[in-house]
Amino acid sequence: MIKIDFDKMGGLIPAVIQDYETGDVLMVAFMDEKTLNLTLKDGKTWFFSRTRNKYWMKGEESGNTQDVMEVLTDCDADTVVIKVKQNGPAACHTGNRSCFYVKWENGQWVEHSNPLFNPDDVYKKK
Amino acid sequence: MIKIDFDKMGGLIPAVIQDYETGDVLMVAFMDEKTLNLTLKDGKTWFFSRTRNKYWMKGEESGNTQDVMEVLTDCDADTVVIKVKQNGPAACHTGNRSCFYVKWENGQWVEHSNPLFNPDDVYKKK
Repeated sequence: MIKIDFDKMGGLIPAVIQDYETGDVLMVAFMDEKTLNLTLKDGKTWFFSRTRNKYWMKGEESGNTQDVMEVLTDCDADTVVIKVKQNGPAACHTGNRSCFYVKWENGQWVEHSNPLFNPDDVYKKK
Repeated sequence: MIKIDFDKMGGLIPAVIQDYETGDVLMVAFMDEKTLNLTLKDGKTWFFSRTRNKYWMKGEESGNTQDVMEVLTDCDADTVVIKVKQNGPAACHTGNRSCFYVKWENGQWVEHSNPLFNPDDVYKKK
């Protein structure tokens, strides 16, 4: 029986979130055993934030949740790829469709930012 | 100027390797600053192996190298997505095209293994 290996990285595994229609990688975040199980049961993506040291459901504040369409793990069961239907215009908190909008070009990182919402409207409403 | 953040994970970042044609995630591995720079300069993918504690170029033993087509980083510059042309039949050491051949189905992980080469033929030739 395959069991996810959370030991390699102190209880966390990387989770690659991929748009199930376009194949674009929308974001990469981390899951522990609890948030992986929540994701598998709930059908929405849950993560553990290393910087904020807390659990969070993607979209809990913005409304831009992700419906889980398919979950894959790899040959050594220490990473997951989750194909999702992205709700709302964008996955990234910057308003970009994908978090990966920075490209290596001619020896430097170049931002290709094209925000589909204004983060000030979506976050920090409290 | 954007600088990759290697500090969050003790000098390492996850690198998502994606087939530039199909969008399939072929593998996820880790890079430190040295192997990211090697990858950017060399045009082949280089990684740091956490289990073997060494640098390796994908395909150095099997010949199934990866040509770097595009390199992206994310909003907080702590992960890279690398789109590659996969040389040879497969990326995974098991002979599967992608390492992600294990799928969550009806409450369990199910292997969908379809090896395109025999690992015994490709590895441990020495």
